Amino acid sequence: MQSDEAQIRTLVQTWQRATMAGDIDTVLSLMTDDVVFLVPGRPPMHKAEFSTLSSPPSGSNSPKIDASSDIQEIGVSGDLAFAWTKLAVSVTPPGASKAINRAGYALTVFRRQGDRWLLARDANLLSVVAETNRSTP
Amino acid sequence: MQSDEAQIRTLVQTWQRATMAGDIDTVLSLMTDDVVFLVPGRPPMHKAEFSTLSSPPSGSNSPKIDASSDIQEIGVSGDLAFAWTKLAVSVTPPGASKAINRAGYALTVFRRQGDRWLLARDANLLSVVAETNRSTP
Repeated sequence: MQSDEAQIRTLVQTWQRATMAGDIDTVLSLMTDDVVFLVPGRPPMHKAEFSTLSSPPSGSNSPKIDASSDIQEIGVSGDLAFAWTKLAVSVTPPGASKAINRAGYALTVFRRQGDRWLLARDANLLSVVAETNRSTP
Repeated sequence: MQSDEAQIRTLVQTWQRATMAGDIDTVLSLMTDDVVFLVPGRPPMHKAEFSTLSSPPSGSNSPKIDASSDIQEIGVSGDLAFAWTKLAVSVTPPGASKAINRAGYALTVFRRQGDRWLLARDANLLSVVAETNRSTP
């Protein structure tokens, strides 16, 4: 049985790998149904909108996503937990030669539901840092 | 005896009024010593830096600050709580004719310390919305 903190670290790692693999179903399974995502300059986003924005249009290729997350701190009490994380995300749209790089921090609230921790509220402060040429393999 | 949620609402109101009044000491008394503020495009900010940035240089006038905060949700478990809030902040620097208006959301984590709730972690997603002419009274 993992500690609460270890379970939350595992959730963050699973989220990151599934995002990079384009496995939206797994990402959706890691959040509460009433999840709220806050990002600068737009209204709060809920689960249905997250799902729509994360899924590529049918018939199109998925973007190439590289992501790293470096957890700075986890705090747990009762059925609530929080973490803040240093993030870097690089997205290369299909056919594009350059990646869009964003970096920054996120503050995330997790809730215990039954025997599982799920992501419940998230404030994402990523901002664009630079474009890089995609290295062709 | 106020409920936890009512205590946190009172904290948010006190924070807002003290900010508008330039009462930095009161604002500092409402946060934990290990507080972390996350904002887009800059490194995490701690209590000493918050204090420095909030205090006008000696001999100068204080900016005029108008602020409103509309709590969207509060969740409490054990000694942790979170809130997300719709914010609008208008700052008019001394001598300026125009205010800088910022609006957006914040996600905040509170911690119970002894018998008091204190602000512990805050992600502030405010972005500049427009300039307005300051109405001269």
